[in-house]
Amino acid sequence: MSGWLAIAGLGPGDAALITPEVSAALATATDVLGYAPYVARVAAREGLSLHGSDNREELDRARHALRLAARGRRAVIVSSGDPGVFAMAAAVFEVLEEQPEWLALEVRVLPGITAMLAAAAKAGAPLGHDFCAINLSDNLKPWAVIEKRLRLAAKADFAMAFYNPRSRARPDGFARVLDVLREECGPERLVMFARAVSTKDERMTAVTLAEAVPEMADMRTVVLVGNSQTRAAGRFIYTPRAAP
Amino acid sequence: MSGWLAIAGLGPGDAALITPEVSAALATATDVLGYAPYVARVAAREGLSLHGSDNREELDRARHALRLAARGRRAVIVSSGDPGVFAMAAAVFEVLEEQPEWLALEVRVLPGITAMLAAAAKAGAPLGHDFCAINLSDNLKPWAVIEKRLRLAAKADFAMAFYNPRSRARPDGFARVLDVLREECGPERLVMFARAVSTKDERMTAVTLAEAVPEMADMRTVVLVGNSQTRAAGRFIYTPRAAP
Repeated sequence: MSGWLAIAGLGPGDAALITPEVSAALATATDVLGYAPYVARVAAREGLSLHGSDNREELDRARHALRLAARGRRAVIVSSGDPGVFAMAAAVFEVLEEQPEWLALEVRVLPGITAMLAAAAKAGAPLGHDFCAINLSDNLKPWAVIEKRLRLAAKADFAMAFYNPRSRARPDGFARVLDVLREECGPERLVMFARAVSTKDERMTAVTLAEAVPEMADMRTVVLVGNSQTRAAGRFIYTPRAAP
Repeated sequence: MSGWLAIAGLGPGDAALITPEVSAALATATDVLGYAPYVARVAAREGLSLHGSDNREELDRARHALRLAARGRRAVIVSSGDPGVFAMAAAVFEVLEEQPEWLALEVRVLPGITAMLAAAAKAGAPLGHDFCAINLSDNLKPWAVIEKRLRLAAKADFAMAFYNPRSRARPDGFARVLDVLREECGPERLVMFARAVSTKDERMTAVTLAEAVPEMADMRTVVLVGNSQTRAAGRFIYTPRAAP
């Protein structure tokens, strides 16, 4: 039996947003690994071992999955959204760079609907023009890098999507982000807080930067910031295709 | 009968990358509209009218679909990839802003796997750290805006994804893009040309900026540029999660 590893995206929450490719991988897997709340989204069945683990154990999880594949198991690491966007794919390749003997294995990345695009679809089309995606967690990069990127992104007039805006361990950073944005973009810029999109806990909030407060975001929220042209059309928010 | 409009993403090409949500909308539609090569990806069936149209007719297509929905039809506008990323969703909201009487209709955006994320998954995880997405077509924005965004994105050390890098109508702009990137990022920066990802015509090419030539891209190509840390791990290319 020949083992393999797939790093798969489960999308934002609704099963109707999981691709058939990912469902097929899960149907033939022997082992599913991931952050416990994501593994909990995979149905248990005979012959399938579920390995939920804690957040911040990405490298250990990647090594575990590669060891399983090397033993002939069919392992799937599940991420929420897309595994290549602030999720498990990069962690697996960090391990493969350190331990190239595992490069002989079959390793595939299976894309998923990432949170910012599910949120944008619910809001309208706020990412309909050039945009950027920034992980606001400062676990793996200094605040100075985050601030520099925010200011340059604002000067480029990118719409922006922020992942991991705020957590219990980092309650204050997001207030600074909002301050930088107000300085660079002015008070009227539109901001969307999209929480738990496509789940029963979904909550969409659209405000101006003047009205935005840090408590509007938590660890299940993706934040979208419009560019200078982003506007409302009725209940929808969108960014026109043309630049001025 | 109550009409509706869905603006749906078909993903990059492989049917296994179409979400069940989009498949369900197509199964209940009475009309499918879109750029003809995308409409051709939808199976014909009794009771379904297929309306393929030319490129650059986005606003007319949006009006046509809204008129059909207003008449009680169930219309789906199909885009390749994700409809909110350089595709049809923004065009529909431009029309809705002009003709708010259509806001009474049910209008939904159904996300899809966008080209850059399908390409990134094939390559490894080149968008595993902060990144931006830029439409290189200068149909709807001046070259000066594109150049400014490229330079600011390079200074921010974003990985980058470029849509519409080159077409028969615009054979020269992409050479200037590569020149700007070489100036800002140096000759060793990794570039991936991902053509027709997940189709039988798929071709993945990874080179340095020094080796990149405009002819590596065409209208079916999405181009990914690494950040300063992007590197190879065996046959994969990825960007580490940590910033230096």
